[in-house]
Amino acid sequence: MTDLFAKRMDNVHKSFIREILKITENPEVISFAGGLPHPDFFPVKAIADATEHLLKKEGSTVLQYSTTEGYLPLREYIAARYKKRFNITISPDEILITNGSQQALDLLGKIFIDTGDHVLLERPSYLGAIQSFSLYKPQFHQVELMEDGVDIEALTDLLAQHPIKLFYGMPNFQNPSGISYSEEKRHAVADCLKQHNTIFIEDDPYGELRFQGTPLPSMRHYLGDQCVILGSFSKTVAPALRLGWICANPEIMEKLLVVKQASDLHSNYFAQRVVHQYLQEHDLDDHIALIQKTYGQQRNLMLQAITKYFPEEVSTTQPEGGMFLWVMLPEHLAAMDLLNYATELNVAFVPGEAFYVDKARPNTLRLNFSNANAEQIEIGVKRLAQAIKRLLSEKVPA
Amino acid sequence: MTDLFAKRMDNVHKSFIREILKITENPEVISFAGGLPHPDFFPVKAIADATEHLLKKEGSTVLQYSTTEGYLPLREYIAARYKKRFNITISPDEILITNGSQQALDLLGKIFIDTGDHVLLERPSYLGAIQSFSLYKPQFHQVELMEDGVDIEALTDLLAQHPIKLFYGMPNFQNPSGISYSEEKRHAVADCLKQHNTIFIEDDPYGELRFQGTPLPSMRHYLGDQCVILGSFSKTVAPALRLGWICANPEIMEKLLVVKQASDLHSNYFAQRVVHQYLQEHDLDDHIALIQKTYGQQRNLMLQAITKYFPEEVSTTQPEGGMFLWVMLPEHLAAMDLLNYATELNVAFVPGEAFYVDKARPNTLRLNFSNANAEQIEIGVKRLAQAIKRLLSEKVPA
Repeated sequence: MTDLFAKRMDNVHKSFIREILKITENPEVISFAGGLPHPDFFPVKAIADATEHLLKKEGSTVLQYSTTEGYLPLREYIAARYKKRFNITISPDEILITNGSQQALDLLGKIFIDTGDHVLLERPSYLGAIQSFSLYKPQFHQVELMEDGVDIEALTDLLAQHPIKLFYGMPNFQNPSGISYSEEKRHAVADCLKQHNTIFIEDDPYGELRFQGTPLPSMRHYLGDQCVILGSFSKTVAPALRLGWICANPEIMEKLLVVKQASDLHSNYFAQRVVHQYLQEHDLDDHIALIQKTYGQQRNLMLQAITKYFPEEVSTTQPEGGMFLWVMLPEHLAAMDLLNYATELNVAFVPGEAFYVDKARPNTLRLNFSNANAEQIEIGVKRLAQAIKRLLSEKVPA
Repeated sequence: MTDLFAKRMDNVHKSFIREILKITENPEVISFAGGLPHPDFFPVKAIADATEHLLKKEGSTVLQYSTTEGYLPLREYIAARYKKRFNITISPDEILITNGSQQALDLLGKIFIDTGDHVLLERPSYLGAIQSFSLYKPQFHQVELMEDGVDIEALTDLLAQHPIKLFYGMPNFQNPSGISYSEEKRHAVADCLKQHNTIFIEDDPYGELRFQGTPLPSMRHYLGDQCVILGSFSKTVAPALRLGWICANPEIMEKLLVVKQASDLHSNYFAQRVVHQYLQEHDLDDHIALIQKTYGQQRNLMLQAITKYFPEEVSTTQPEGGMFLWVMLPEHLAAMDLLNYATELNVAFVPGEAFYVDKARPNTLRLNFSNANAEQIEIGVKRLAQAIKRLLSEKVPA
C-alpha cells in the first residue's frame, strides 16, 4: 500500500527526539533531553477538587459536545490575563482553544501554507514547529538568533528577498536556545515586519516562567493584528490536559474555526471546564511564582555545575526564564558524537542540529533544567563534562 | 491579509450545520438537528469517582506529557473489545488514540490525500468527513446507498473507472441515513475492494448502539489490513472527553504517528486515564444496554409519530441502531424550504443536501432521535408534519 501515501509524506520520518526519549526510559539515565515541566508543580489535589466541584455543580452539561471556539469563560479568563500582563486588548472572540499550542501550529500551517510558500523561522527554531509546518511543504528560511534576539540585518534582507507569509518566533526563553528578544529588538523586528505582508506568530509557552529580569511586551503590542499569539496551560498548569490557544484577528479566526472544526470538532470540553474551575478556585500567579522560583534555582545550579565541570572552550546561553539552555561546543566537535559517549555515561540531551532546517551547527546541544533535581543536575553535568573531555581529547580541530 | 491564505481555503465556508445549531439555541425550539447523544446517559458520578481514585492513586504522572500512541492499557482494552465483539485480532500497536474520531479523518486525509486524488464516499455521507477530506482537495465520488448498503454495481463501475485511494463508509446505522450494510453487502463490498488498491475506512461511532437485529461483522473481518477502523467513546461514554481511535496496519500506523505528533503531540492524557479508570470500575456493556434500550424506544416513538402525522407521500428509513433516521419528501419539495417553515413552528432538522458533495437530493432531511424525550418527539414531529403539509399545499409537482 506504500504507493498510496500522499506526496507530503515523502521523506517524513519518525522524530529523532522520540528515539532519544526512548534512551531516557532507562531509570539509570539522567535526562536533560525532554521538555517536561517539573511534575511537583502539577496541582494534583486542586485538579481533583475542581473536577469534583464541577461535576457536582454542572452535571452532564460538561460532558456533552461543545462549541468549536472553546468555553467562553475560559477565553474570557485568557483575554483578561493579557489585559493584566501586557495591557493589550484581545476579544474572547479572537481566541480559539486548541489541543495544546502544538495544534495551533498545525491549524496555522493548514490555513496559510501552500507548497513552496516562504516561511521564516529563527535559527535555531522549535523542532515541533518545523515538523508541523513541514507537512504543508513550505520553503523554509532561518534568521540567526543573537544573544538579544534575531539578527535585524539578516531579517531585513530575508524579508526583502522573499515573499514571506509567516515568521514564526518565540521571543521569550526560546525552545531550544533559552534566548529572549530585548525590548529594542522587539521594536526593531516589528518595524521590519510592518513593511511587509507577513504574519508574525509569537509562540509564548514559557513567557510566564520568568525568574530574572523584567517582563517585556508581546509583539502584538507593536504589531497589532499582524501578530498571532500562541499560549498554553501546559507549563503553568499541566501538559496532560492539552490546553493551548491561538489569539488571531477576526479574519484569520474565521478560517481557523473552519479547519479546527474539520480537524476535531472542538478541544476537550471536560478539560476546559476542569481547568476553568481550577482557575476560579486558585490564583494562577501564586502558583506560577513557585514554579519561577524553582526553575530559577535549577537554572543557577546547572550554570554553576557547567562553570565548575565543563572545559573552558564550551559556552552557554544565560536564559532569564523558561526550561532550556543552549550549549555551544568547540566548532570541530559534533553533539551527535557526544550523545554516544554521554549515553554510555547515562546522561542524555538533544543535539542542536535537530533545530536547524539545514542540520547546521552540529556543535550545539539543548539542555533542559526544569525536570531535574539538584542532585541530578550536579551529577548529570559532571557526566556530560566527562563525555565532552573524552571527545575533546579524541578530536583535533581541522 | 486575505491574499495570504492557502489555496485549500478557497471556497471553504462556515459549516451550514453550525448555523442551524444557532437556531436551536432558542429553548422554544425542538431540535432534531444536532447529533448529540442523550446527556442522561453520561456517567457523571462514575467519572467523578474515577477521577478522584485516579488522582489519589497515580498523582502527578497522569498530568504529565505522554506518548503519541496513547495510553497502552486503554489501547489494550479497545483491542480486547474487538476480540470479544467480532473475534478479530488487533494489536494495541495498531491502535492510535485520537481527539474523537473526527481527528482520525483529518489524520487519514493528511497521510493519503494529494490534490486531485480520488476518494469515494457513500451517497449521502457524513458531513464531517466531507469537510475534513475537502481541505486536502481530493476528487470526490459518491456511491448510492440502498436500503441494505451501497449499490454494488455502481461501486464496481466507480472502482473500475477511477484509481480510488480511499473508500470512506459507515456500515452501521450511518450518519445521516441510519442505513446499515447487510451481511451479504459487506461480503460483496469486500470482494469488490479486494481487486483494487483501495483502503476501506470503516467509521463506526454507532456500531454498539444496536437496538434491533443482530450485530454484523466489521469490514476488517473480510478485508484485514485493507480496512482501517475508526471508533469512539463519544456515544458510549461522553463526547466532551474527545476520545476516539484509529485501528490501522503497521505501515499506515507509522505514518499516522508522524502526523499525529505534528498535529498535537498526543491526545488528552488526563482524559485517557480517567476513561480507562472508569472502564476498570464499570461494565461498559451494562451501560450501553441502557442506551440501546432508550434510543430504540425513541426511534419507535419517532416512527410512530411520523406514521400518525406525516402525509403518505413522505417515506423514511428504519434504522436498527444509532441516532438518526432519514426522511424523503416528494421529489418536487425542498428541505431547505421546509426548514424555513419548520423554524417558524419552532422545530429544526438538517436538510439532506449537506450530505451530498453535489448538493443533490434537496428533498431529503436528517432527523436525530437520540437527544429528545417522548413529549418532544411527539410535538416536534407533529409540527414538522404541519410544515410539510403547508409546503405540499403550495408547491405543485413540475
